[in-house]
Amino acid sequence: MRWWGWGEDAHAMRLPEAAEARLREELGVQAGVGTRALSLEDVRLPDASLPDGLRERLAGVELREDREARVSHALGKSYPDLVRIRSGDGSSAPDAVVRPSSAEEIAEVLAACQETEVAVVPFGGGTSVVGGVEPLRDGFAGAVSLDLTRMDRILEVDRESLTASVDPGLFGPALEARLQARGLTLGHFPQSFEYSTAGGWVATRSAGQASTGYGRIDELVEGVRCIAPTGEVTARALPASAAGPALRELLVGSEGVLGVLCVLTLRVRPLPQERRYEGWSFQSFEQGCETFRRLEQEGVAPDVARLSDEQETRLTMTLSSSGSAAERAGRAYLRLRGHEGGCIVIVGFEGVPETVERRRREAARVLRSGGGLALGVRPGRAWLRNRFATPYLRDELLDRGVMIETLETAGTWSGLGALYEAVGGALRASLSARGTPPLVMCHVSHLYPSGASLYFTFMARQERDGAELDQWRAAKGAACDAIVSAGGTITHHHAVGRDHAPWMEAEVGERGLDLLRAAKHELDPRGIMNPGKLIPG
Amino acid sequence: MRWWGWGEDAHAMRLPEAAEARLREELGVQAGVGTRALSLEDVRLPDASLPDGLRERLAGVELREDREARVSHALGKSYPDLVRIRSGDGSSAPDAVVRPSSAEEIAEVLAACQETEVAVVPFGGGTSVVGGVEPLRDGFAGAVSLDLTRMDRILEVDRESLTASVDPGLFGPALEARLQARGLTLGHFPQSFEYSTAGGWVATRSAGQASTGYGRIDELVEGVRCIAPTGEVTARALPASAAGPALRELLVGSEGVLGVLCVLTLRVRPLPQERRYEGWSFQSFEQGCETFRRLEQEGVAPDVARLSDEQETRLTMTLSSSGSAAERAGRAYLRLRGHEGGCIVIVGFEGVPETVERRRREAARVLRSGGGLALGVRPGRAWLRNRFATPYLRDELLDRGVMIETLETAGTWSGLGALYEAVGGALRASLSARGTPPLVMCHVSHLYPSGASLYFTFMARQERDGAELDQWRAAKGAACDAIVSAGGTITHHHAVGRDHAPWMEAEVGERGLDLLRAAKHELDPRGIMNPGKLIPG
Repeated sequence: MRWWGWGEDAHAMRLPEAAEARLREELGVQAGVGTRALSLEDVRLPDASLPDGLRERLAGVELREDREARVSHALGKSYPDLVRIRSGDGSSAPDAVVRPSSAEEIAEVLAACQETEVAVVPFGGGTSVVGGVEPLRDGFAGAVSLDLTRMDRILEVDRESLTASVDPGLFGPALEARLQARGLTLGHFPQSFEYSTAGGWVATRSAGQASTGYGRIDELVEGVRCIAPTGEVTARALPASAAGPALRELLVGSEGVLGVLCVLTLRVRPLPQERRYEGWSFQSFEQGCETFRRLEQEGVAPDVARLSDEQETRLTMTLSSSGSAAERAGRAYLRLRGHEGGCIVIVGFEGVPETVERRRREAARVLRSGGGLALGVRPGRAWLRNRFATPYLRDELLDRGVMIETLETAGTWSGLGALYEAVGGALRASLSARGTPPLVMCHVSHLYPSGASLYFTFMARQERDGAELDQWRAAKGAACDAIVSAGGTITHHHAVGRDHAPWMEAEVGERGLDLLRAAKHELDPRGIMNPGKLIPG
Repeated sequence: MRWWGWGEDAHAMRLPEAAEARLREELGVQAGVGTRALSLEDVRLPDASLPDGLRERLAGVELREDREARVSHALGKSYPDLVRIRSGDGSSAPDAVVRPSSAEEIAEVLAACQETEVAVVPFGGGTSVVGGVEPLRDGFAGAVSLDLTRMDRILEVDRESLTASVDPGLFGPALEARLQARGLTLGHFPQSFEYSTAGGWVATRSAGQASTGYGRIDELVEGVRCIAPTGEVTARALPASAAGPALRELLVGSEGVLGVLCVLTLRVRPLPQERRYEGWSFQSFEQGCETFRRLEQEGVAPDVARLSDEQETRLTMTLSSSGSAAERAGRAYLRLRGHEGGCIVIVGFEGVPETVERRRREAARVLRSGGGLALGVRPGRAWLRNRFATPYLRDELLDRGVMIETLETAGTWSGLGALYEAVGGALRASLSARGTPPLVMCHVSHLYPSGASLYFTFMARQERDGAELDQWRAAKGAACDAIVSAGGTITHHHAVGRDHAPWMEAEVGERGLDLLRAAKHELDPRGIMNPGKLIPG
């Protein structure tokens, strides 16, 4: 993973020239104003200051203090993170990166850090976009990143019960490759799939692109072991239980503030024999939402269901435009059918061939009756090909002086339209007020019986000369305020981290926060675990 | 509800004479040894001792101190509860029964009780079979039952999001009748359905007979408000969220020890247009389990799926025997096909007609390929007719000197056979050692991708003259020890209450208990809420 941006050079996706020109024009960005990241050597790092004795106490555990390790664990991958690290701000780098190879070593690290008052930041793939892995050391003698990627085994597969127990540091591709070699799949494909880990997914309540069908990671976790400064809590892997509150649900989503999640028992499924992805078009976002609601509530929802609003559809077409004859014909067809300026939908079905075909047919009936126009398998294939690539575009856009950020929420079907308007409106108003009117786009990508997710992307001309973060804060704050006012959740799958913590009181209430604090105090009385995240204040 | 047993006189189910003779013979019970319950007037009650001032402080709240109210809130409906109350032991009766009509009145009661150190036992239908509603007043100045059945409204129905917000004291039949009048259903039908409440279901993580299809109550709760002595916690109704640990899951299943659950937002569904229930037979329990696993994992499980083992099948046939020609022909058919002494299965499908038919066909293919023999709709109809009636038989059997109790667990598919053997073996060994060899029966009634529930019923000649409870404790203890040793959960849907609390450390570990205690301390620092339940010690 590039320390200054997304992914690896070899896989990077380039911004097409036509799209670049179009964006410049719409956002009012001049050519040549962007900034490239400085070189690794130019990143400014604080002096490392591990307390006396800690290094010796951890003699048996791999510990890195080199520049590359510290810089690559200083921040996550949100827009403000990228702005900071590209400008050479490495002030949040940990004093060291500790890389345990076992649960015992994790316990050793926590004990030593508790004793020496050093903050511990659990770190998987480091793809947090909410400030979840940035070491905050206020009041501590130092901070270490606890990098879990040496713990990357599949520990056990129970074929009969269709579960797999895995280490926390296993990356998406390795996890899937090893399961698929046994004819199984987890079916969890967040956009960060290639660079995120199983432990990170569980710690943040991740949702994948196919979660409408396979279920969110919280629905796939059957058991989990948590190593905390005061000891261990294990939520045993059970199919169901009525033995009191579900403590598993206290550990899932705990974002490293209670302890380190380290044996994850996950539900797996037989590898699908067939995958069918196709495109549809709706004349309006509202019509698409209403049809998605029916798909879900009538029990015929696809495994992947994505609906882009008018703005996202237009931008997607611009970005993928090749100017080919086939593309022109496609546009002409949409125009002819009255779908010009409409909304694109991707639906995907996975499983055994006869079931895929039946489900596709049932869904098509609902899509058509809701006003949908079938576009065939081509848009589906294109989406599948590029499904993990869009984060690379952020780096491209930053190079060109464009601010780009995403945020997400979920709400009930009856409130979804108002939530959509509120968040979009807040982003447009807050950024326009700064003289940088944005492009705001949205898609629905996760369906539930009672509601759906909304995922927003916004772009604007980047303010410069130190105003970059103020600009972001203004937009982010306005959007978050709008979300809670309109009854949405502050996050559908990005988690809380540092960025959403100020809205947690609106999310769970004052007594809800007290409950979280009580749990933290029980497992981490000195507060060394990922301080400043999830729980405000 | 009869204070000394199940249900109402008008609906009571009688034990057929042939079955009675058969049971006497098998269990070695003599005729005429049973005991009838004493009369209400003969129940021995402790003097009511509400602290000074409490009655005045609660002047606005309905408060009952009469004999009938106190006796009917003294215990739940487990075997030891019935043994005690029938013998006139009302020692656990509350000092008073408080019946609030609003959330505000609940808060008032909690504040007054906290101040005067009076224990509060939330009470819905009082059908707990694990000692969940018995007032335990050790160390308190008194105890009141907080009867919630005056709060019985449907507060809001959101048709678009398919959710309903309801009061906690709404009984099953009223809830369903009001939803069904709007073309909706919750689809939650525990055996106690007629006498249990929505709040009780949520507080105990209830599972209903159709939960394989509709989902357990924990999967149907989207939001809940909890009134605790220190304030309120509200888990907002959201389709999904990644905003940290799911506090909703801390409130669901909290069994009254954290506070009083009082606004429940539940997922509802369109009322099914068609219901099809039918019977199948398997030659062995093992074959049936294996086929149920395939049904679930291949995604074609029915909404109701029940498999009785050989013993339960035999007893069900004995109990329902009419001696008719049709019955004889049925038995001859089973014999002819090699299914004599086999296992009966009930499967039920609900929904729109075409879907019901397709699902039935798909399930039939799997059932047949697993060795199942179709028995048509007659057994399905018979099961539907009597689905809530069996608890009445306990009273009949107690009248005749027969001990009868049920207990349940769940485990993974790969461990299910061993769990079944372990629990059955423990019940047989413990009761045989006392000279009362039991009949032990079991069924599977809830399917999950990774495992299933096991529901045991056991009967034995009742020991007398004060040894009734020792006999029960010996069997119950042996079964619970066997469950935890074999990796099952201590309860699949009966909850923890007083009876399972000693096994909670095995269930969630020492640090898990600490987390529960920390949550309780936060919401109920004086420990007035349902003391002695759920959390041991």
